[in-house]
Amino acid sequence: MNNNIRWLRDRIKMQDLQGIIISNPINIKYLTGIEAEGTFLITPKENIYITDGRYVEAVNNKLTINDEIFVYDIKDLTLDDYENFFMFCEKVGFEENYVTYAKYKDYMHRYKVNSLEETEGIIEKQRMIKDPEEIEKISRACKITDDCFEYLKKYIKVGLTEKQIAKEIEDYFIKAGADDLAFETVVASGRNTSMPHAVPTDKKIEPGDPITIDMGCKYNGYCSDMTRTIFAKYVPEEIKEIYELVLKNQKQVINEMKEGTNLKLVSRIVQNDFKLHGYDLIHALGHGVGLEIHELPFSSIKYDSVLKNNMVITNEPGIYIPNKFGVRIEDTVWINKGVSTPLTKSEKDYVVVDI
Amino acid sequence: MNNNIRWLRDRIKMQDLQGIIISNPINIKYLTGIEAEGTFLITPKENIYITDGRYVEAVNNKLTINDEIFVYDIKDLTLDDYENFFMFCEKVGFEENYVTYAKYKDYMHRYKVNSLEETEGIIEKQRMIKDPEEIEKISRACKITDDCFEYLKKYIKVGLTEKQIAKEIEDYFIKAGADDLAFETVVASGRNTSMPHAVPTDKKIEPGDPITIDMGCKYNGYCSDMTRTIFAKYVPEEIKEIYELVLKNQKQVINEMKEGTNLKLVSRIVQNDFKLHGYDLIHALGHGVGLEIHELPFSSIKYDSVLKNNMVITNEPGIYIPNKFGVRIEDTVWINKGVSTPLTKSEKDYVVVDI
Repeated sequence: MNNNIRWLRDRIKMQDLQGIIISNPINIKYLTGIEAEGTFLITPKENIYITDGRYVEAVNNKLTINDEIFVYDIKDLTLDDYENFFMFCEKVGFEENYVTYAKYKDYMHRYKVNSLEETEGIIEKQRMIKDPEEIEKISRACKITDDCFEYLKKYIKVGLTEKQIAKEIEDYFIKAGADDLAFETVVASGRNTSMPHAVPTDKKIEPGDPITIDMGCKYNGYCSDMTRTIFAKYVPEEIKEIYELVLKNQKQVINEMKEGTNLKLVSRIVQNDFKLHGYDLIHALGHGVGLEIHELPFSSIKYDSVLKNNMVITNEPGIYIPNKFGVRIEDTVWINKGVSTPLTKSEKDYVVVDI
Repeated sequence: MNNNIRWLRDRIKMQDLQGIIISNPINIKYLTGIEAEGTFLITPKENIYITDGRYVEAVNNKLTINDEIFVYDIKDLTLDDYENFFMFCEKVGFEENYVTYAKYKDYMHRYKVNSLEETEGIIEKQRMIKDPEEIEKISRACKITDDCFEYLKKYIKVGLTEKQIAKEIEDYFIKAGADDLAFETVVASGRNTSMPHAVPTDKKIEPGDPITIDMGCKYNGYCSDMTRTIFAKYVPEEIKEIYELVLKNQKQVINEMKEGTNLKLVSRIVQNDFKLHGYDLIHALGHGVGLEIHELPFSSIKYDSVLKNNMVITNEPGIYIPNKFGVRIEDTVWINKGVSTPLTKSEKDYVVVDI
């Protein structure tokens, strides 16, 4: 049995649960390595993966005896089988943040468990702390992202469209050995930068445009995430105050990201500094990065969230002036031996392209 | 107010609901055209979209007065506001197939509604029946897919890898004006075809390989879906019986797809014919296609599901021999004036490439 499953077995015992039903495919991948559609059960006796005909062969090919996971084809299971899995169990955990209300009712009916218990992100919380292999994969994804940024500094020219640049980024990632994009690339230029989640359009880059590039890739399943706001030909005067305010805060936050730091307080400090200058912090300051591009912990003014060693989390302050422009600067940061180590390392001072 | 929202208002009234909370972003897009993260409420008095700072500007830019939708930034809403939305409502609907158990509890707490009622896919069921604009968009996506297949017949050669072919398909779609892939392209060759959901690998195409290509794109948000199993250099004798059995059934099903046909019966007929020859039908025979690549109705031996005019649904029988090979043939089919009109029209008899 692998370490992650062994850990979870111990963990649920401490919570007085006799088993757990795991439905979130990312959590299943984290625990078992399996990438398919199915449900993973930890029962008092066994580890069970239930899937369907489309995946049985692939899953069986992937698992070894050491995994100690029994694979069932859903069509071979009877109602009695479902009841037997958690026979004599008083309390069985489920993922209330993933399972729909309809599925919850189905589980109640199917597994005939006395009580299905909410588990409050038990696996997501464990996933916050990365092991050395995970750090290595995220670092590789970040390195590809940095290399891509170096390439873009030469590639981006006035006249290219946002969509062309986004496509070039994607091609770069794949050629550089990434599995995939970590999320849909944001390339926003000129006025479009005023929308934090802008989708690339056919707008062409013009001289004086700020260009916000929010990009990331996956390497062996693990994500990177970086944003830079760069400029075509020259940096317009009107944007400088905001750029420098965002950059100053972004750097200060990296210094503050230490073991034990409460991200809520850090977020408040940024919000206050923005307000002092007449602006606002309209989105969260950051989020964990791992198998998912957005995962625990979240860095926001709303929730207490204390940094621990080997968390990987983004730091991405931004200011957006509706219908004018916006600036966001973001790094993926590793809490390493108590202090922050940025894993994305691209230049953050003014980058001007096509000069 | 647009037709879809007006329809939904009438529909919930018939079900004795005074309002509905819509959380599924695809349903929100269908009803409002909005593509963002947020919640859409139909209250007794108003249509309300709640989103956050990242999306407020983009959503407001998109909507017009005719939409009659009020947009709120979540950070401006007080607990009183939430209570007021459904004040005096006895029953309010929610999407039990989309909303998590945790979110359901949050809605109960936040909106203080007497009873949150399951709505059994009320909007998904309406989405099954496509209007002429939707048919047009799906047809365009299917045309691009057919054109891509024509291109592939010349492009695919022995020595190319599955990944290279998948990448070429993606590039073709984007160049041809598609928004995006409808799903991750399947390119499986040789033994890999025995897995219905194979992921493209670095395996090179070899002479005599069957090559299963399952591909689709999106056009203006609407999907296409087509599978062909083709051959490199020649068709191996051992595969012919299965190819012809799959093709015969695929063609028969298209003939049977008429207004009023129960897809369960059609699926049973295919299953029986496969069994008669010693094989099995291990996945569903098809699924609806629209804003989502998999949507209602589902064509399977398990559920009654009756075809109606202007449904669009795939027909994709397949046979898979573990560790040997597999054959799947799939079209996207429109139920038009009572009978079936395939929207993907690519050749289905033996296609041999690189000869």
